[in-house]
Amino acid sequence: MANFKGHALPGSFFLMFGLWWSVKYPLKYLSGKMKANCRTSLFYQRLEFVEGLMKAIFSLVGILAEQFVPDGPHMRLINGEDHSWVKLMNWQHSTMYLFYGLSGVVDVLTYFPLKIPVGLDRLSLSLAVFVEGFLFYFHVHNRPQLDQHIHALLLIAIFGGAFSIFLEVFMRDHVVLEFFRTSLTILQGTWFWQIGFVLFPPSGGPEWNQEDHSNIMFITMCFCWHYAIALILMTINYSLVYCFVKRQRWNNCEMDIGIRKLNSDKDSKAALLAGSEEE
Amino acid sequence: MANFKGHALPGSFFLMFGLWWSVKYPLKYLSGKMKANCRTSLFYQRLEFVEGLMKAIFSLVGILAEQFVPDGPHMRLINGEDHSWVKLMNWQHSTMYLFYGLSGVVDVLTYFPLKIPVGLDRLSLSLAVFVEGFLFYFHVHNRPQLDQHIHALLLIAIFGGAFSIFLEVFMRDHVVLEFFRTSLTILQGTWFWQIGFVLFPPSGGPEWNQEDHSNIMFITMCFCWHYAIALILMTINYSLVYCFVKRQRWNNCEMDIGIRKLNSDKDSKAALLAGSEEE
Amino acid sequence: MANFKGHALPGSFFLMFGLWWSVKYPLKYLSGKMKANCRTSLFYQRLEFVEGLMKAIFSLVGILAEQFVPDGPHMRLINGEDHSWVKLMNWQHSTMYLFYGLSGVVDVLTYFPLKIPVGLDRLSLSLAVFVEGFLFYFHVHNRPQLDQHIHALLLIAIFGGAFSIFLEVFMRDHVVLEFFRTSLTILQGTWFWQIGFVLFPPSGGPEWNQEDHSNIMFITMCFCWHYAIALILMTINYSLVYCFVKRQRWNNCEMDIGIRKLNSDKDSKAALLAGSEEE
Amino acid sequence: MANFKGHALPGSFFLMFGLWWSVKYPLKYLSGKMKANCRTSLFYQRLEFVEGLMKAIFSLVGILAEQFVPDGPHMRLINGEDHSWVKLMNWQHSTMYLFYGLSGVVDVLTYFPLKIPVGLDRLSLSLAVFVEGFLFYFHVHNRPQLDQHIHALLLIAIFGGAFSIFLEVFMRDHVVLEFFRTSLTILQGTWFWQIGFVLFPPSGGPEWNQEDHSNIMFITMCFCWHYAIALILMTINYSLVYCFVKRQRWNNCEMDIGIRKLNSDKDSKAALLAGSEEE
Repeated sequence: MANFKGHALPGSFFLMFGLWWSVKYPLKYLSGKMKANCRTSLFYQRLEFVEGLMKAIFSLVGILAEQFVPDGPHMRLINGEDHSWVKLMNWQHSTMYLFYGLSGVVDVLTYFPLKIPVGLDRLSLSLAVFVEGFLFYFHVHNRPQLDQHIHALLLIAIFGGAFSIFLEVFMRDHVVLEFFRTSLTILQGTWFWQIGFVLFPPSGGPEWNQEDHSNIMFITMCFCWHYAIALILMTINYSLVYCFVKRQRWNNCEMDIGIRKLNSDKDSKAALLAGSEEE
Repeated sequence: MANFKGHALPGSFFLMFGLWWSVKYPLKYLSGKMKANCRTSLFYQRLEFVEGLMKAIFSLVGILAEQFVPDGPHMRLINGEDHSWVKLMNWQHSTMYLFYGLSGVVDVLTYFPLKIPVGLDRLSLSLAVFVEGFLFYFHVHNRPQLDQHIHALLLIAIFGGAFSIFLEVFMRDHVVLEFFRTSLTILQGTWFWQIGFVLFPPSGGPEWNQEDHSNIMFITMCFCWHYAIALILMTINYSLVYCFVKRQRWNNCEMDIGIRKLNSDKDSKAALLAGSEEE
Repeated sequence: MANFKGHALPGSFFLMFGLWWSVKYPLKYLSGKMKANCRTSLFYQRLEFVEGLMKAIFSLVGILAEQFVPDGPHMRLINGEDHSWVKLMNWQHSTMYLFYGLSGVVDVLTYFPLKIPVGLDRLSLSLAVFVEGFLFYFHVHNRPQLDQHIHALLLIAIFGGAFSIFLEVFMRDHVVLEFFRTSLTILQGTWFWQIGFVLFPPSGGPEWNQEDHSNIMFITMCFCWHYAIALILMTINYSLVYCFVKRQRWNNCEMDIGIRKLNSDKDSKAALLAGSEEE
Repeated sequence: MANFKGHALPGSFFLMFGLWWSVKYPLKYLSGKMKANCRTSLFYQRLEFVEGLMKAIFSLVGILAEQFVPDGPHMRLINGEDHSWVKLMNWQHSTMYLFYGLSGVVDVLTYFPLKIPVGLDRLSLSLAVFVEGFLFYFHVHNRPQLDQHIHALLLIAIFGGAFSIFLEVFMRDHVVLEFFRTSLTILQGTWFWQIGFVLFPPSGGPEWNQEDHSNIMFITMCFCWHYAIALILMTINYSLVYCFVKRQRWNNCEMDIGIRKLNSDKDSKAALLAGSEEE
């Protein structure tokens, strides 16, 4: 979908995930540090399950949208008449969504007691991001200079993300890597919107001169500004979460001693159950 | 052997190893997790021995085939008449097989009590894969665009595999890396077949237009589909192994207590033997 | 600021930081090894705070200088008349300073009890260096050969530094990495000066022939010499610090036993305070 | 020195070091594994000292040879008459030797009680190898195709070695990395000889056709053969060392018990001394 909506849609997905992670990971990190509450482990496992489900559903929606928009391929790959390929762009986008969908499925399966190896969810996410970058890399040949450049910048965010997530396979729950991934995801989200605004000005404004070197210089710098904004957004969310967790802790303090006993009883029962299940 | 068979043969080798690993590694991982039986360590050592032997034999077969096919070089490197090189393609393929053979030999030697450092088998496999990619990289200069592109995609699978195996030198028995290697090996296998079908259509069908940009776009996407299929194959095999190990465990449960005592006696004897051997 | 001063200024910043680190890290390492004194941990934390503050202030100065020099953009980005960009070079330099500023802010915040994850300061510094290299990379298109080459060499120092600092996220306080970073920072500093001397000879000497291949060969070698000088500078500073710490230890020895008791009392109080603050 | 001797000389240095390491590292590894004798730690420290000294001396010889051969620059850098550079090739080679010399000096200093950080010797060696590759990379512009290609292959061995040694900074005494470094060093040595034979046939034979594609294909493959030969040489040396260490152990066994007491006495005294020195 080479139009404004076709860039705004994935941009919104990435932005949503990025912003959500910019709340979730500080919350997990700070509540872990401050021992605000005890039932967190199970809670975060469930969150990952819901996230995986969302990823899978969004991907399915994406695939269906790419296939069945009015000018889509409607699941036909080869044109019977002249043996040419049908709407390869849409098929490529579907393929990108497919790998994100697979990553979502792995996330969901990890939740079930199938003993799926720890780290496989990160590997599959890393692969999904890599495949996105891989397809984009061969996507933009034979296009004007600015178009190629603006997509090349996107590749930095994408491959940077894929590399960072790959590291998480070996250093799971490393908070700096999680923050790094979050920032790159927000960057990707806002940059998709930027691409839409530059290549398909929605307001009907004048198009950008695609061959002007100073436009390319500005876009390069603009990419850095997007990243700076992503970092500032994360800082704000971190601060909000910090305040929230701190107040939470004060409120909990009084009732804590009473609850702690209750919890420890529950936990030992849960541990027993988990133990017997594992057998 | 620049024909269909010349691509189908190595493709089958890689596919065979990939599929075998997609059974072996889940089995090792799950039976380790579930403590299904105890004599596994020795069992897997023997498997690696047999695997190494197979690798060495296949490589020897490959070298001999490349050298002694009717239009092969028959071990002659220089043409005496005009001082030109004889059949360099076949010599290059022989060289690829040679390094896989060396890797196989190292696997076999690891089995014997020569105190070969742990990790050397992974390094030699990584080198064999790297050499394959290295030779392919310089293999396809001066060819049509589609031919170059389809081999360049192969290089991603190859160098990805070499890198992943190199990591295994330092993180041996890391199950995620083993799964990753397996998936890339299956991908390489099926992609060799794909190359054969595209460049040398066996059914006598029409050849692909080598300069058509949409063919290149399709092939790029097709590479991703191959990988998706590799992942799905691995998921199926994992599930089958999971069911198998689970049932096995139930059957073993009853006789387990009796055997355990027996085994522990045996093991202590074996440990004693190993200890005295190590001295 | 494409003139001699525009290169001498950042060069001096880097050189200053590099030389300072070439004293600080040996001091930290050697006094740690020799247990010269006990209040070091707090001392180095405060140093990092001051360093961060300096970085933030220098960056602010840099931004203001780039914006408000007589021929600067004065915070105007778009020329209202012909919709062209205003002074993009200065804006790009401002962006570089901005990221160093952010890194400084993170350093400062790390000092406060906001529970900012360990390693985030290194990540933000690594990003700042990466952004510098990233902007430089697209900076020098369409310039004469020698100009491009001399900046390309700078990129090696920059990306090498970014990579090395990224490793420090995972291996904090690894003394070899700290020394490596120091050497690359000194190299960057002296190389900025070298660029200034080559491209804008301040003495009014004859300009370098930008297309002469032997000039490029010399500059390549000269880059290595700069690095050799950086290493020698570091060696000298290391030796001086070594002598200083050794003498210090001798002087302290006599009064040590008396002080140690005092300190341990203070430390336990500080630990108590820190503990209650952390609560 | 762009002639046969100019390639044979460094080739011999690398080959000598490579072969020496292919004996030293197996010896260290196997005698460590088999606990053949006890004074090994000090012994290997002394070996590293001698190695460093050799490196420094060889480098000095190399520098002097490059400078003071009859057609060398004799320490003059700029030709006073026409302000041109004097013999930049020789100066570049001198620079390469310089960094190997620095690495040797670091090795030597590590031996003295200056508390030089562990790993700095590996870093300086890695830098020396990197600088060699860096200078070679810009060395061969504007040359015939075969000349460029044969040097590009050398770069693979060089940068592979630099990377592998850089890993040793963090994984010191990792036997697989040491073997890998050894194999790449032997490869470099034999490849230098190969370059000499190809570009400057010493026997006065006919020169190679520099533009013939099949020559390039052969050279690519030949590079792999060199590596295979390096691996085989290492295997032979490993086997010889294995036999030697095994026989040694048998001989030592009888006198071992007597000596062990003696040694432990000595060691405890040495430990006391070292302890008091460290104070």
